[in-house]
Amino acid sequence: MAEAGSGSLTVVGLGPGEAHWLTPAAQAAIDAATDLIGYGPYLDRIPERDGQTKHASDNRVEIDRAGHALRLAAEGRNVAVVSGGDPGVFAMAAAVFEALEAGDPAWLSLPITVEPGITAMLASAARAGAPLGGDFCAISLSDNLKPWEVVTARLEAVLKADFVICLYNPISKARPWQLRAALELATRHREAQTPVIFARAVGRPDENLRILTLAEALEAAASADMATLVTIGASSTKLIPRPGEAAPWVYTPRSVTKSPSATSQGRT
Amino acid sequence: MAEAGSGSLTVVGLGPGEAHWLTPAAQAAIDAATDLIGYGPYLDRIPERDGQTKHASDNRVEIDRAGHALRLAAEGRNVAVVSGGDPGVFAMAAAVFEALEAGDPAWLSLPITVEPGITAMLASAARAGAPLGGDFCAISLSDNLKPWEVVTARLEAVLKADFVICLYNPISKARPWQLRAALELATRHREAQTPVIFARAVGRPDENLRILTLAEALEAAASADMATLVTIGASSTKLIPRPGEAAPWVYTPRSVTKSPSATSQGRT
Repeated sequence: MAEAGSGSLTVVGLGPGEAHWLTPAAQAAIDAATDLIGYGPYLDRIPERDGQTKHASDNRVEIDRAGHALRLAAEGRNVAVVSGGDPGVFAMAAAVFEALEAGDPAWLSLPITVEPGITAMLASAARAGAPLGGDFCAISLSDNLKPWEVVTARLEAVLKADFVICLYNPISKARPWQLRAALELATRHREAQTPVIFARAVGRPDENLRILTLAEALEAAASADMATLVTIGASSTKLIPRPGEAAPWVYTPRSVTKSPSATSQGRT
Repeated sequence: MAEAGSGSLTVVGLGPGEAHWLTPAAQAAIDAATDLIGYGPYLDRIPERDGQTKHASDNRVEIDRAGHALRLAAEGRNVAVVSGGDPGVFAMAAAVFEALEAGDPAWLSLPITVEPGITAMLASAARAGAPLGGDFCAISLSDNLKPWEVVTARLEAVLKADFVICLYNPISKARPWQLRAALELATRHREAQTPVIFARAVGRPDENLRILTLAEALEAAASADMATLVTIGASSTKLIPRPGEAAPWVYTPRSVTKSPSATSQGRT
């Protein structure tokens, strides 16, 4: 049994599914932990071993999970909180620091480490080609934690300024219409032919990558789910057709030649 | 000698410095390559081995390097183009697809793979806490490939819309003033106390993380370099002080409560 006060907390990114995208540092953090805390499906990816306890939880109680992790670490356990992808991108790291700030001041002395991971937008981009070749942004479409007007104001800003846009948490049973609304907003600023990528479960056996036009994506919005990362191309994003059955490559050239005013006008 | 047509090209992300952030998939791609192509300092990270040829190049000829890689692959070599961080984020992947599109149509049949890596903004965020807890964006401050007016228009858009902002390529000998100009623009939209992170060489022996206020960052701009990743917090980004000498944690809460209008006004 570890001595009280000797505990630690590591927030670990597992990457998007395949062990071959798990960094050695993340693997070492998992190996060193006495306790693993996370959403059940993420914990299921980690083989059981003696001396290590798994604490599975529901996906929607991040703050409770973070508090539980901090309490265990304060009791002297070596705790790893696991997230899919990168823990700092719409995952557990922010919840841990929220719980730290609101919690027992003694927790502030705990050694806390965040181990980065391959986030879904990087994995999805790699599979498609190089869609993030220019400036880009990441927006969570979930309005559980922010008003929908904030989401649309942000979308509008980055559509006008011609960023490539990655949408996390695009849709769920409780939020069925937001992705279509976001894509409709996009049609006011981007051509109907703009490439859109629906990347589902990248790195898992059921991986599915769809290269669509914005017009097609609008019709297909209901087929996305919480495991889908949606990338909307910039005005310069283009396709390179390939011979045979292969999907085209998608890439965004590094150079921008058009003036900002050419992209800051709505198309209504 | 490999048969013509049996070659392949992989664009590999090495992550930010430490081998413990190199994914097993990226390591396997390096191991399988007959030829490694990249900027010298990245190639230097990879141990020499028999049967593998390193082709080092200057950092500013990405498109030539990409064409060279494609020609070697078309001759039957198994080529790995290596980038620091993630190859799709302001690195080699987009250059490879530009060269592919402009090059020999026979190259379109080549098997090309992009192996993602930990990009600097994720590594820097992990070291600082969870600054990317909300919506965020990545902007290259280099105006080699886009007009400066495009950079400022994009900065203005994401400052008004209250994104966390990660600045890649903040400064170089040929571009000494852009970072200060970007931070000056930020002071018109964000409080002087907004946390700014200067993360230099994260994952390398000379790693240096500085947690500043926006006002301090403006004064310190000239101390950044091409190895520095600058993160400007959103209006909600905050610090958690720690006991003793430890730097404060920086994090951005997941929740947004203020209305977008509260952040869409300039502060001039």
